[in-house]
Amino acid sequence: MSGLASNQSLTPLTYGLNAQGHACLGNLSLVDLALQYGTPLYVLCGNTIHAAAKAYTDTLTEYYPAPHHILYAGKANLSLGLCQKLSHWGIGVDVVSGGELTTALKAGMDAKALSLNGNNKSADELRQALHAGIGLISVDNEDELHLLAHVARETSQTARILLRVCPGIEAHTHDYIKTGQEDTKFGFGLHQLPTVMAAILGPLADVIELQGLHAHIGSQIFDLQPYQDLAKLMLTLYFNIRKHYGITLPDLNLGGGLGISYTHTDDPPAIATAVQAIAETLKGEADKLDYPLPRLLLEPGRSLVASAGITLYTVGSQKIIPPSPTFAGRHFVAVDGGMGDNIRPALYQAHYTAVVANKATQAATQTVTLVGKYCETGDKLIESLAVPPVEARDTVAVFGTGAYNDSMASTYNRMPRPACVWVENNSACLLTRRETVEDLLRRDQWFTQL
Amino acid sequence: MSGLASNQSLTPLTYGLNAQGHACLGNLSLVDLALQYGTPLYVLCGNTIHAAAKAYTDTLTEYYPAPHHILYAGKANLSLGLCQKLSHWGIGVDVVSGGELTTALKAGMDAKALSLNGNNKSADELRQALHAGIGLISVDNEDELHLLAHVARETSQTARILLRVCPGIEAHTHDYIKTGQEDTKFGFGLHQLPTVMAAILGPLADVIELQGLHAHIGSQIFDLQPYQDLAKLMLTLYFNIRKHYGITLPDLNLGGGLGISYTHTDDPPAIATAVQAIAETLKGEADKLDYPLPRLLLEPGRSLVASAGITLYTVGSQKIIPPSPTFAGRHFVAVDGGMGDNIRPALYQAHYTAVVANKATQAATQTVTLVGKYCETGDKLIESLAVPPVEARDTVAVFGTGAYNDSMASTYNRMPRPACVWVENNSACLLTRRETVEDLLRRDQWFTQL
Repeated sequence: MSGLASNQSLTPLTYGLNAQGHACLGNLSLVDLALQYGTPLYVLCGNTIHAAAKAYTDTLTEYYPAPHHILYAGKANLSLGLCQKLSHWGIGVDVVSGGELTTALKAGMDAKALSLNGNNKSADELRQALHAGIGLISVDNEDELHLLAHVARETSQTARILLRVCPGIEAHTHDYIKTGQEDTKFGFGLHQLPTVMAAILGPLADVIELQGLHAHIGSQIFDLQPYQDLAKLMLTLYFNIRKHYGITLPDLNLGGGLGISYTHTDDPPAIATAVQAIAETLKGEADKLDYPLPRLLLEPGRSLVASAGITLYTVGSQKIIPPSPTFAGRHFVAVDGGMGDNIRPALYQAHYTAVVANKATQAATQTVTLVGKYCETGDKLIESLAVPPVEARDTVAVFGTGAYNDSMASTYNRMPRPACVWVENNSACLLTRRETVEDLLRRDQWFTQL
Repeated sequence: MSGLASNQSLTPLTYGLNAQGHACLGNLSLVDLALQYGTPLYVLCGNTIHAAAKAYTDTLTEYYPAPHHILYAGKANLSLGLCQKLSHWGIGVDVVSGGELTTALKAGMDAKALSLNGNNKSADELRQALHAGIGLISVDNEDELHLLAHVARETSQTARILLRVCPGIEAHTHDYIKTGQEDTKFGFGLHQLPTVMAAILGPLADVIELQGLHAHIGSQIFDLQPYQDLAKLMLTLYFNIRKHYGITLPDLNLGGGLGISYTHTDDPPAIATAVQAIAETLKGEADKLDYPLPRLLLEPGRSLVASAGITLYTVGSQKIIPPSPTFAGRHFVAVDGGMGDNIRPALYQAHYTAVVANKATQAATQTVTLVGKYCETGDKLIESLAVPPVEARDTVAVFGTGAYNDSMASTYNRMPRPACVWVENNSACLLTRRETVEDLLRRDQWFTQL
């Protein structure tokens, strides 16, 4: 178990053990946090998020000799408090809905620091974004380009846009492919650019202001090559656009997707390594093409918040199936959450690891399957977890849950969603309060006559 | 498209077309419902749910000459209004959490008509159930048995329980297997029964009252044989329990799991056929063993509500990828909902079918991929759907969404969850109001200092 503490990318930066052998963030025991705030509980380590944000911005400042802006991919995990912190640290947000946009604005973020993304934005969302004076809108397809122009004219505004393109590079975790045409709902095919440029420079020129291109090549990416290929390809596109249209596009958005460690077998590059590689590739290509470096936008989601997150659960019942001639046996340990607060194991066959927080220094003596309390066979958090002897009321801490857990949570089985606690510099506070059964009933109506 | 109307099990019972060629429930146009209530919109046909409930109860009344009780599996889709209706129709609810129990009780349901299920009930949930005077608690494992006894003693109450057992029969859709030992977190292995019976009849006898056994063999089951095998096996267990312990258990819960038609290729048995087969198998076995028929409990979820459900969406953007030598091409049609309101295609690779509700009589001329507006590649509702020419603002009606859509919905991408409308006897009313962005922000806290 103790091996976990040394792997900075698997656990939050401030993760450690106290004198009682309890898992901690700084000097705050996870066991105490579970007692104080109840379980299941999401915990976000602010120091870890801050360090990740700094790794992005500091590396760009050092290696990218042109303006840059980090747009956190809000879909990974969004709340008012997180937006306040990001804004304080100079980070913007890439929002993908009116709900995310409202959250960022309500948190006091500068609309100019935001971008709006998505394959099917509604007229209302586009109107809201223009009204707020959003920094950029990534236009995803021709239908949307015309809808946006319509909305902009309606309100006598100009829309600063990026065009989201499919560069023909798809990357996931360990491998990537280059294709002529990606099978994706997102973005323009490169073959569409001449038509779209003609529209933007022609009939739509009064309301549409093209700032640059946007590409996003995948998620949980461990390999730097696809990013470098993307950087070269995009700069070549910019070069060609200047050549054909005489336009020097000021902004370039290379998306996000950098991977994180969910278990000891994951080995992603450090943020600084990845960002340096992207920056240097762009510089090299710009020099080669004699093209001025655009402002660089990056959209990290998972790599900013996932490793900062821990979910705390309380152990309840256990069930041991003894081995038989036809079955190897299994030891189920059930906790008080599950697929409602973390759908990723069921949805993506995602792997996680965990410790028993109140027994973090005890040697593992058994392998168990960590399951939740949802009434479904697929409600399994960790298939195979080495743990010391486990008892009811033990606190289990699952690592790497800062991204796509809270944001994808459901109230399946009418189980309220967890609270989220922010821990920074040895102090904790509530970022999101626990949902109540009253919250769940809030939208239900009554029949006055049956 | 018109072929859909004749398949009673794929669409709600009152599904049809009006003079304008719009898809309808009774005389209510789905296009009008979408306009009136907004989209995405869940629609539940009350007549279809009522007919399914009647099929269960009428068939049992006709073929099962002993008491019976239907416990709707609330996890499929639960709300106050639905509980009111079910209660009015003499149907109980199987709840799996304090949240579901609260919902059923608040709707005015008789606690005696309810049962509590789940692999890891908390002490609070058990306390709440006992306090309410719940009909039955399905005890899932030894830890829980002792926790329940503790809670019952604490409050000087008696717990009427079923023991959930793993009968070694697992069934899903088209096939099933009989195993000596199931690899499941749910229920007691049959080998554990002697120990558990000794505890119930010995030290726990003052607070635990064993009413029977409970088994649930799977979901979306099309084959009747596993139900018949289960009925025989359970009655043999009852016979042996009487022989060894001199106890005639009064209740038998055979669970749920009967499948429904999601697409034209699904061919599940009618509810009446399945229930008759179960009833007759039990009768035959009881005659053979000279054993009195217990009260029969069944727990249908999906088969009561899924086919009653339709989700209405509005078409937004489209993207056509032309065929190339290496790619067959694809036509994406994006709607204003997706994986947030229906996670089943992404989670279970579930198949659905749909019509364009305002063009329901027009011939299909093309095959499209129906996707949502969530910022994720996996946000795909229907891989391959034959439709007439589609335009922005068309209304798409996806069938079979009455179960495990609303109950599993998330607010991913900070998109509020849909409203749900109840349609019965040609009139519509709101069952669940639409979620708002304000609802989403309700739990977010502020930092007063950064």
